[in-house]
Amino acid sequence: MKKTEIGAADVLIRDGFWGGRIKNAVENVIPYQWRVLNDKEPGAAKSHAVANYKIAAGLEQGEFEGCIFQDSDLAKWIEGAAYSLLYKRDPKLESDLEEMIRTIGKAQRPDGYIDTYYILKEPDKRWTNIAHGHELYVTGHMLEAAVAYYQVTGRDSLLNIMEKNVDLIRSVFGHGEGKIDSYPGHEEIELALVKAYRATGKEKFLKLAEYFVENRGRVPGFQAEEGFPKEGERSKVYGADYHQAHAPIREQEDAEGHAVRAMYFFTGAADVALETGDESLKAALERLWKRTIGRRMYITGGVGSQSDGERFTIDYDLPNDTCYTETCAAIGLAMWCLRMLRLSPESKYADVMERALYNNVISGISQDGERYFYVNPLAVEPETAKYRADHSSVETSRVKWFGCACCPPNITRTLCSLGTYVYTRAGSEVYQNLYIGNEAVFRTESGEAKLVCETEMPWEGRAKISCHGSAGIDLRLRIPSYAEDFRLTRGGETITYTVKNGYAVLDRAISDGDVIEVSFQMRAQFIAANPRVAEDCGRVAVVRGPLVYCAEQVDNFRYLDTFRVSPDEPIREEKSDLFGGIVALAVQGSRLDVSAWDEDDLYRPADAASEIPCEMKLIPYFLWNNRGEGELLTWLRSNGFHRP
Amino acid sequence: MKKTEIGAADVLIRDGFWGGRIKNAVENVIPYQWRVLNDKEPGAAKSHAVANYKIAAGLEQGEFEGCIFQDSDLAKWIEGAAYSLLYKRDPKLESDLEEMIRTIGKAQRPDGYIDTYYILKEPDKRWTNIAHGHELYVTGHMLEAAVAYYQVTGRDSLLNIMEKNVDLIRSVFGHGEGKIDSYPGHEEIELALVKAYRATGKEKFLKLAEYFVENRGRVPGFQAEEGFPKEGERSKVYGADYHQAHAPIREQEDAEGHAVRAMYFFTGAADVALETGDESLKAALERLWKRTIGRRMYITGGVGSQSDGERFTIDYDLPNDTCYTETCAAIGLAMWCLRMLRLSPESKYADVMERALYNNVISGISQDGERYFYVNPLAVEPETAKYRADHSSVETSRVKWFGCACCPPNITRTLCSLGTYVYTRAGSEVYQNLYIGNEAVFRTESGEAKLVCETEMPWEGRAKISCHGSAGIDLRLRIPSYAEDFRLTRGGETITYTVKNGYAVLDRAISDGDVIEVSFQMRAQFIAANPRVAEDCGRVAVVRGPLVYCAEQVDNFRYLDTFRVSPDEPIREEKSDLFGGIVALAVQGSRLDVSAWDEDDLYRPADAASEIPCEMKLIPYFLWNNRGEGELLTWLRSNGFHRP
Repeated sequence: MKKTEIGAADVLIRDGFWGGRIKNAVENVIPYQWRVLNDKEPGAAKSHAVANYKIAAGLEQGEFEGCIFQDSDLAKWIEGAAYSLLYKRDPKLESDLEEMIRTIGKAQRPDGYIDTYYILKEPDKRWTNIAHGHELYVTGHMLEAAVAYYQVTGRDSLLNIMEKNVDLIRSVFGHGEGKIDSYPGHEEIELALVKAYRATGKEKFLKLAEYFVENRGRVPGFQAEEGFPKEGERSKVYGADYHQAHAPIREQEDAEGHAVRAMYFFTGAADVALETGDESLKAALERLWKRTIGRRMYITGGVGSQSDGERFTIDYDLPNDTCYTETCAAIGLAMWCLRMLRLSPESKYADVMERALYNNVISGISQDGERYFYVNPLAVEPETAKYRADHSSVETSRVKWFGCACCPPNITRTLCSLGTYVYTRAGSEVYQNLYIGNEAVFRTESGEAKLVCETEMPWEGRAKISCHGSAGIDLRLRIPSYAEDFRLTRGGETITYTVKNGYAVLDRAISDGDVIEVSFQMRAQFIAANPRVAEDCGRVAVVRGPLVYCAEQVDNFRYLDTFRVSPDEPIREEKSDLFGGIVALAVQGSRLDVSAWDEDDLYRPADAASEIPCEMKLIPYFLWNNRGEGELLTWLRSNGFHRP
Repeated sequence: MKKTEIGAADVLIRDGFWGGRIKNAVENVIPYQWRVLNDKEPGAAKSHAVANYKIAAGLEQGEFEGCIFQDSDLAKWIEGAAYSLLYKRDPKLESDLEEMIRTIGKAQRPDGYIDTYYILKEPDKRWTNIAHGHELYVTGHMLEAAVAYYQVTGRDSLLNIMEKNVDLIRSVFGHGEGKIDSYPGHEEIELALVKAYRATGKEKFLKLAEYFVENRGRVPGFQAEEGFPKEGERSKVYGADYHQAHAPIREQEDAEGHAVRAMYFFTGAADVALETGDESLKAALERLWKRTIGRRMYITGGVGSQSDGERFTIDYDLPNDTCYTETCAAIGLAMWCLRMLRLSPESKYADVMERALYNNVISGISQDGERYFYVNPLAVEPETAKYRADHSSVETSRVKWFGCACCPPNITRTLCSLGTYVYTRAGSEVYQNLYIGNEAVFRTESGEAKLVCETEMPWEGRAKISCHGSAGIDLRLRIPSYAEDFRLTRGGETITYTVKNGYAVLDRAISDGDVIEVSFQMRAQFIAANPRVAEDCGRVAVVRGPLVYCAEQVDNFRYLDTFRVSPDEPIREEKSDLFGGIVALAVQGSRLDVSAWDEDDLYRPADAASEIPCEMKLIPYFLWNNRGEGELLTWLRSNGFHRP
């Protein structure tokens, strides 16, 4: 059964929580990032991404500067800017985009090649460093941008450039004599090719995506180039597994290696599986997803436990202070979950997607939208993070830009295309995965229907969904894993529903004039980790609905780890005016008395006398570090339960 | 007041605990290390240290191999081998030593230069890399070896070579035109020069030591060469503070930088202070010692919290799994404490010295003496340690040798000269710092006295000290910080004593025929760390007498951190036959039920139902990893006290 994709234009976000972030992205962040990409933002690290294309196009003099994949920063920005036009038509931005695309066209070589690093710096070295050269990665992002631009504006200027580029790649890569039989060092092109296939209907895009997905780990490419230790061993930082090339996907047991690469790979593979209907590929992805989520994911939806190699390590290795948990990796996890939902509408995928989006993804951007985290640890002691060599990837405050700036434009494009995450369709069934306020249009054989969803999420478990138009919609509403007392009403009347794969199936299709009200309780809860996670033994996290909460020094005291929570005591919820209005939490417990210890005294017999009863205030994790530098703690030491 | 040094020959260790280790060092380890140094031990990393000297001497063909300071491995071995002759005359070993010394003499350049790296590899680069070249470090170790060989055998062959070498250094380094006005990148020569001064009475040795100690951080040497960040900042890995060169010693606030260097520096500085009587230098050392012990020392007597730079980091930063806590650094701490005792007989110095010797120092060597730890972490999960990049310096089992093999011969020389740590003298007062069985000879103005000490330490707090000979001894007996019910008897009669600086001052001098019996209780105790140490918040260590205890997987279960101790319950002591007889401990508590969690399930609401009452068996820390690879845990999660 062919599933129906929901385009970015079909669902526009309209709510206070995400809507405000998207408005900020559209009005401030996209212009800000454009200034950065043009090297016109004071105080931000130099990007040079636009300049590289201008030089390659012969419009400016100069040399290539930046990372080997610098082009992709621009590509992600174009993609985000294109999606932003859904929310606000902006002639200046559109003309900037057209001009930029013309420049890319001028930079493109007659044979279709577009990567400015190789054009400017190593013209004779094209396609010689498949493992680390990032040419196919850059193409992937620019192709995603092209599809977005085409879908939003109807203009095919960039898509034509990229089709020519893909045709070149098709002539260079593949099985058979004279071709490079390999696959990208950094996955990304696979999912972009499927997007291009869906946008154009041209099979060649899908075929190339399928080739890259199926070929990975199969031909003796990276294993030979990168080396991979003996059977059963792992590489520690780099190696074939760093590129998910240690085995063909159906034989891979776990998400290994570079976390962003792994997420993008599985996303692209799921896209291929959806289009081809390959059940064994789908089964492999289901297994990999289960293992990743069940053994290697932080409670914030972060993945990548180690800075060296920005990668997965081993099962249950989830250090809270030295983790990498890159913003882009959490975006990748959300993307993968969305594809799994398209393959198989099961609410567990939406639970994880929501967890990633509401926590690790948006912790990557400051409230004002102009400062970013690349790395999103769950515990930070600023002095340690600044001083210790093994914390060197941790920033203690969000920064304006990065030399390697994959994350900032990735957040922007994700926000501006967030509508695509809200619903999935399987034939006539429409699954609402996220209770985000939105207006959506669905076209069916019987006509068109518009759904308008208003919600108080993530603060309260309430949503009102009204239906307008001629078509009936078989709406299925996700019952979040954390929801208690999940109720549905229509026009004030309780609806009886059945539950299938974690979704409420209504008693009948909804149609013009129907208003469905969803309500559920979101009780703040103490969450424990599997005891195989040494870092979290004897600790609890506090979660309310989709949000993980955290303690910040500014609300509490120094040495946050001196606190021990008493989980028998209730968690207090409190409407707070912070950050324009949030639900803050407070937990009860006690803390070790630092003042009882001389500063020059490290060890003494343990005694009972030194704990002080106190409260710990908590805010949503993603909001941390918006009030200056200080300690962060997510997993709180716990006293354990005493009640039976 | 000039204090009286106690030579290695004056105190010979005779007890089951240390005596066995020394016997093993003398009979097995020194021959084993000699084979390694000669590249004749299969399976051990290649040393090449002897070959380098033979090549430099023109006796063999070849090239220099090894670290830039490879010579020092040989030097430490010579020193240890010389001391070993105190325990066992060995004509073969003595002839090997003489032959080796003749080779060193042949390798020595006519002007006195001896460093084989520069002789063989960069003859034109002598004295050009003072920060990292290690020439003065090598001289220091070879000079210590020369003094030891001279003191034990009366032979001055190596001492003459080294005096010529020191004369060269005196001509090269110093204030004034044409000289290099600097100080060693790796301290060591300072303490060796004071030893040479004491052995020969030649002032020039002391003067050079004083110059190096006083010059450090004063002349713009390393600050300019190495860079040091803005006022108040620290370098993270390398920088002037790495070499303790960020300020003159009297202005240094903390032990900074490379831990072994810092310890050797403070040791040499204390030696200089003792000989010169400089009170301000002594005061600086007292302050530095207090800060180091009070903020930056592991409970095992380990120092150096970080692998990168093998160095100190910041106050209270004491990670248990990624620490460096190098064996050599703990030896250096014991050396420094011994010097502080000579400067000022206060038992606190002996408490720390004993802590280092009984824990971090001897954990560096296996029970059979042939395998070594360089790094001595307090917590190890083998799979994590093998896989995670930030654990790369951690070995999960002791190894036969190291490419950089500073530690193994350092342990050997320390064991064979352990007698020097037992007593210190201040004029007529003799302080017994350690209750290690020994025979000691003290010469006073009224004659000679021999003390024979028999003891059951570290298992029981008992010692019997008998006095023989013509001299009376004003014996002062350390009251260990952990001792309870400290009692002294003489011929069965209780002695009343006064306490001064933590030492029991007897009612009268002891003399021929007196037998003093010392007894005290050593109760196993739960120890807490200062709550500023985030790593240890809510945890306890278990200590009995000088020994820190630890949990090993082999005695308990996997996932040691699932255990939570109930400190209200008594610690059970148990004589065990393990390792030839030890006191083992067991503590009560409960552990999280790993089996209650699916392997693919990371997070779920915390509940009360999942802790299983159990016992945790503990053995002395230094004995860990003598029964195969497995988890190690020293700081146990604690339930807290509930009794009032």
